[in-house]
Amino acid sequence: MLIVMRKDADDNQVAGVIRAVEAKGFKARPIPGGERVSIAVLFNKGAIDPAFFHELPGVKDTIPVTRPFKLVSRETRPNATVIRVGNVRIGDGHRVIMAGPCAIESETQAMTIAEHVKRSGADMFRGGAFKPRTSPYAFQGLGEEGLKILAKVRETYGMPVVTEVMDMAHFDTVEDYADMIQIGTRNMQNFSLLRRAGESKKPVLLKRGMSATVDEWLMAAEYIMAEGNPEVVLCERGVRTFVRHSRNTLDFSAVPVVQRESHLPVIVDPSHAAGFRDQVIPLSRASAAVGAHGIMVEVHHEPENAQSDGVQSLLPEQFDVLCRQVRAIWGLISDMPQAETSS
Amino acid sequence: MLIVMRKDADDNQVAGVIRAVEAKGFKARPIPGGERVSIAVLFNKGAIDPAFFHELPGVKDTIPVTRPFKLVSRETRPNATVIRVGNVRIGDGHRVIMAGPCAIESETQAMTIAEHVKRSGADMFRGGAFKPRTSPYAFQGLGEEGLKILAKVRETYGMPVVTEVMDMAHFDTVEDYADMIQIGTRNMQNFSLLRRAGESKKPVLLKRGMSATVDEWLMAAEYIMAEGNPEVVLCERGVRTFVRHSRNTLDFSAVPVVQRESHLPVIVDPSHAAGFRDQVIPLSRASAAVGAHGIMVEVHHEPENAQSDGVQSLLPEQFDVLCRQVRAIWGLISDMPQAETSS
Amino acid sequence: MLIVMRKDADDNQVAGVIRAVEAKGFKARPIPGGERVSIAVLFNKGAIDPAFFHELPGVKDTIPVTRPFKLVSRETRPNATVIRVGNVRIGDGHRVIMAGPCAIESETQAMTIAEHVKRSGADMFRGGAFKPRTSPYAFQGLGEEGLKILAKVRETYGMPVVTEVMDMAHFDTVEDYADMIQIGTRNMQNFSLLRRAGESKKPVLLKRGMSATVDEWLMAAEYIMAEGNPEVVLCERGVRTFVRHSRNTLDFSAVPVVQRESHLPVIVDPSHAAGFRDQVIPLSRASAAVGAHGIMVEVHHEPENAQSDGVQSLLPEQFDVLCRQVRAIWGLISDMPQAETSS
Amino acid sequence: MLIVMRKDADDNQVAGVIRAVEAKGFKARPIPGGERVSIAVLFNKGAIDPAFFHELPGVKDTIPVTRPFKLVSRETRPNATVIRVGNVRIGDGHRVIMAGPCAIESETQAMTIAEHVKRSGADMFRGGAFKPRTSPYAFQGLGEEGLKILAKVRETYGMPVVTEVMDMAHFDTVEDYADMIQIGTRNMQNFSLLRRAGESKKPVLLKRGMSATVDEWLMAAEYIMAEGNPEVVLCERGVRTFVRHSRNTLDFSAVPVVQRESHLPVIVDPSHAAGFRDQVIPLSRASAAVGAHGIMVEVHHEPENAQSDGVQSLLPEQFDVLCRQVRAIWGLISDMPQAETSS
Repeated sequence: MLIVMRKDADDNQVAGVIRAVEAKGFKARPIPGGERVSIAVLFNKGAIDPAFFHELPGVKDTIPVTRPFKLVSRETRPNATVIRVGNVRIGDGHRVIMAGPCAIESETQAMTIAEHVKRSGADMFRGGAFKPRTSPYAFQGLGEEGLKILAKVRETYGMPVVTEVMDMAHFDTVEDYADMIQIGTRNMQNFSLLRRAGESKKPVLLKRGMSATVDEWLMAAEYIMAEGNPEVVLCERGVRTFVRHSRNTLDFSAVPVVQRESHLPVIVDPSHAAGFRDQVIPLSRASAAVGAHGIMVEVHHEPENAQSDGVQSLLPEQFDVLCRQVRAIWGLISDMPQAETSS
Repeated sequence: MLIVMRKDADDNQVAGVIRAVEAKGFKARPIPGGERVSIAVLFNKGAIDPAFFHELPGVKDTIPVTRPFKLVSRETRPNATVIRVGNVRIGDGHRVIMAGPCAIESETQAMTIAEHVKRSGADMFRGGAFKPRTSPYAFQGLGEEGLKILAKVRETYGMPVVTEVMDMAHFDTVEDYADMIQIGTRNMQNFSLLRRAGESKKPVLLKRGMSATVDEWLMAAEYIMAEGNPEVVLCERGVRTFVRHSRNTLDFSAVPVVQRESHLPVIVDPSHAAGFRDQVIPLSRASAAVGAHGIMVEVHHEPENAQSDGVQSLLPEQFDVLCRQVRAIWGLISDMPQAETSS
Repeated sequence: MLIVMRKDADDNQVAGVIRAVEAKGFKARPIPGGERVSIAVLFNKGAIDPAFFHELPGVKDTIPVTRPFKLVSRETRPNATVIRVGNVRIGDGHRVIMAGPCAIESETQAMTIAEHVKRSGADMFRGGAFKPRTSPYAFQGLGEEGLKILAKVRETYGMPVVTEVMDMAHFDTVEDYADMIQIGTRNMQNFSLLRRAGESKKPVLLKRGMSATVDEWLMAAEYIMAEGNPEVVLCERGVRTFVRHSRNTLDFSAVPVVQRESHLPVIVDPSHAAGFRDQVIPLSRASAAVGAHGIMVEVHHEPENAQSDGVQSLLPEQFDVLCRQVRAIWGLISDMPQAETSS
Repeated sequence: MLIVMRKDADDNQVAGVIRAVEAKGFKARPIPGGERVSIAVLFNKGAIDPAFFHELPGVKDTIPVTRPFKLVSRETRPNATVIRVGNVRIGDGHRVIMAGPCAIESETQAMTIAEHVKRSGADMFRGGAFKPRTSPYAFQGLGEEGLKILAKVRETYGMPVVTEVMDMAHFDTVEDYADMIQIGTRNMQNFSLLRRAGESKKPVLLKRGMSATVDEWLMAAEYIMAEGNPEVVLCERGVRTFVRHSRNTLDFSAVPVVQRESHLPVIVDPSHAAGFRDQVIPLSRASAAVGAHGIMVEVHHEPENAQSDGVQSLLPEQFDVLCRQVRAIWGLISDMPQAETSS
């Protein structure tokens, strides 16, 4: 942390801040500048609450210098992590397509869609059994029945399945059936749920909160890893902005930023971000091109009858086109000369 | 819902949309305009998923017309609700000041602050026993020990206490000790927690999510009310914007908007929104002046030693000034001629 | 500026950065911390482009420490500035109400409204002669004819008038007629216009850009002051956020922040921010209570016939109520004990 | 426009609204729904100000139905527009790479960079002669001298040049030298400048405002087209959000949305949006993949000595990699099966 003094701060005020820093057990190093003095706080472990110093006489500003990540940080662990979900790998050079309906509605629906997406080349199957819904009067998912259908999809089509867990009450059940446990955007800072996910043996797909910074998102992953589960995949799904032509705005720069800050894999969900079908294919291509380790896409064979989010679900034939485009772009990228790291 | 057709949509396309609407069991009424046809969807109960119609041939846009609130809506219940918490009333003409530390740190700390805020005229005491923290390595609260201290504050100073519940595991415990149960901003769409709060006999303080619309916030209240608990107070605490000089941006217009849309009381928390002490008093005055039914403010007698959020906590003497200013403004407002309702 | 090195940066990399700093003519002071080294850049004048150092080997981050304001800064000029517009004073303890229609539509309209607002106690009259409109097909204002009507309002009612200048072509004309020249939100970074305003002898009302930070806003004021015009009043008018129930979100914390950073007066325009009439009175009260040096409000006697922004204009009798409420709150604040300055 | 009545609106109130609509010369068509009545306003030309009806007794809400674009709209002109800049074509299947320094600093600098980017395959050269800068004390560009250097680049390397015009005073001069005139993000709603650009014979590159909706952006293009210049290329350059790891957040969904709403070409500027060099290549690939008609990228051979925005400029060898990646993705897309249009 750096404590910036006011231009008119006198020697007593500087000395007072130094005493306050040392009283906390840290080391203070004053740095005289052209117009004002700053004081560096050294040898602290983890983040210091700026509150300790912000209101001392003569202090103008306090500036945090480093971020308190430990387990998620690439500084701690320079090599990219590869997560295994069944026979599928995610991370480093391994890229995946996850696809399926927003919600599992029936065995017929799930199996029909699974057959389609498998044939187009999906690696994993997605589908909600417990659905977070803004309105208490909307369809809330089939619950355990939905999980059983997911298990059947896995057996029949050999695709690992990922599904959302919404609360502690159903965690054990979801964990029993799913190959990968999804923590949704509204639960990104549900810390109890994060800790419980940290005790799980199953890999976790952690969606970014709708208005979370990348730092907060990585800190949520840190919660999971701190409990002992190193298998976390991050999923960018759009952030809330003033923009109204899409449901949320995909923050594509988050992908290279996460890849620089962390060793964890990061994928993109263009379906929920867009909210409209005709944006999903171009945004999926962009997700592939930006270098994400995967995409997660909603597919429905009868979107006009879907019980949730039909408006953004692709038709099977559209998904087929998407898969070919996305894989072609990934093919290109792997063969490309790289120029990103400048130092 | 209104379905807007493209200018070049032909009669077959219009007829196709009408058939699709009627196949859903609704009534379709075409409205020819100057340049294009729109189709009104009638006699639906609750919201219709625009997905049903958005991709039909010739459709340009779908526009939802009404919002699906039931229990929270002022259209359903025109009179303002007054919530009782112990001997305190909130809503309509009843306005409250809730104050206390961010986190309960010790009995001495809590009792010292309670004595101060009681003397300045606080109506209720706040303090966190379970703390949501961005980092897993930060202080997480005293847990049940903190709740016992809150109970002692209530006994000693006669102020009802409000404290946050973070998860299902501690809900019963929090419910046993607290007079009012707070659902925090990160849990505004933790639907299991909302439902559990709906089964409680205790009043609920529901903070707005950091990037929630007023509609989503009211829908979260609807979750609680739909389970049978009519005692909900809403709390505006700032939304996330591009602004960096405060932690969040208080959305003051949400207060009159909530008061027009809903019969529930709404208060403001300027401490968390500001994130800096010197903004808290002016923002508290603004909260009073805008017509909120109360404010919730953090106070600490030794903010430089606070275990969380000290930087935004007021000193007791600052809180004393704040109380006098806020009550004076409320006094003014009650006596003022009213001109807000124009029809 | 502080240059933060990576944990694994070696001595050569640290030495390389120090050389790069010194090659620029600055002084480098390395600060060894617990886990990594940082390097302070000293004796620079004004801001340094982080580009110089950001990509050097071993550098993790660059952190600007001070802001490059000169003339607008309270550090440079500790006493609050008071601006005179005709016989009206703005700033420090002097607070004003500016009112009038969005656009001047006719002499009758302007004189009718002027009589109303004068009687209710408005200090200054506002009204657009040149209107910035999103659509090229919307009413663009009466131009010089509107300015003549404003001059007549001033003569008849003795209120100084403020009106917007949209471009260089009309600057001289607007300057001839207006007592105060308004730079609108869309022109906050129209640097030619700012420089021209800096050459004027008339005081300037500088609205905040719709997505401008306070720093950018103050820098826009710096442009005006740097050309020699010290008479700038800042006007907060709401920023663009995801919120949809109001046109923009008023950033009330900007008021105390500007008052801490700068000596210039700051007022609030609740009409444009709200976009809806029933939010204007509560937001005006909040503007007064937060401590702004004034408010600017739209009033129209026939809002249903207004040629722009009628939906947010107050009726004269509503404005009358507003004036009494706002003045009562200002009266309270002046008499109140102050506790804001903690050091 | 649709006027939604309150549930408890009585017949008199409905009749009153109908009379008000008809008094304006429109046609009113009441639509009785299950719970409330709505009233459609028909046969209006252009947008109606909701102010006319919003405050009438019994009115709950007013909902605009159609957008008032004329010349920019794809409904008016279904075929994609192709813009010619010198020998370069932009739009439909024609995609371009524009590259060059942020600011022209000297002939040597410009010619050196031009040679590099030409060799890598840039189609057009960019470079600022007049620079909009947040601070009045920052480098403001070489002015006409910079334009002369641009002309020399064009002669020597055969690339058309694009450069920004900041105000009316220099419009004629910029027009004389440039092949394409850029209107920057801060001037997107500088309506005088837009009108002047509309009178020009040169094609215009219109950057999106930092917080502009797509509708406002298209309306800005409508200003240009309404004055008679049909040659407009739109440029997405990122919008302001709460995100802090990049300077702005690129809104990639704006590309398919613009392509659906308008016939005008749309390109992306990833350099300004990112603000950091290591995000520029992945975001450029994403821009290509999402289907933009071009990208505009900053390149500098000595970014550490650049006089503005060096931190986001690519080195020539990085730009060379970028060109190959972007062209490969465009090659892929052209050959791909298309599935985007569903109706």
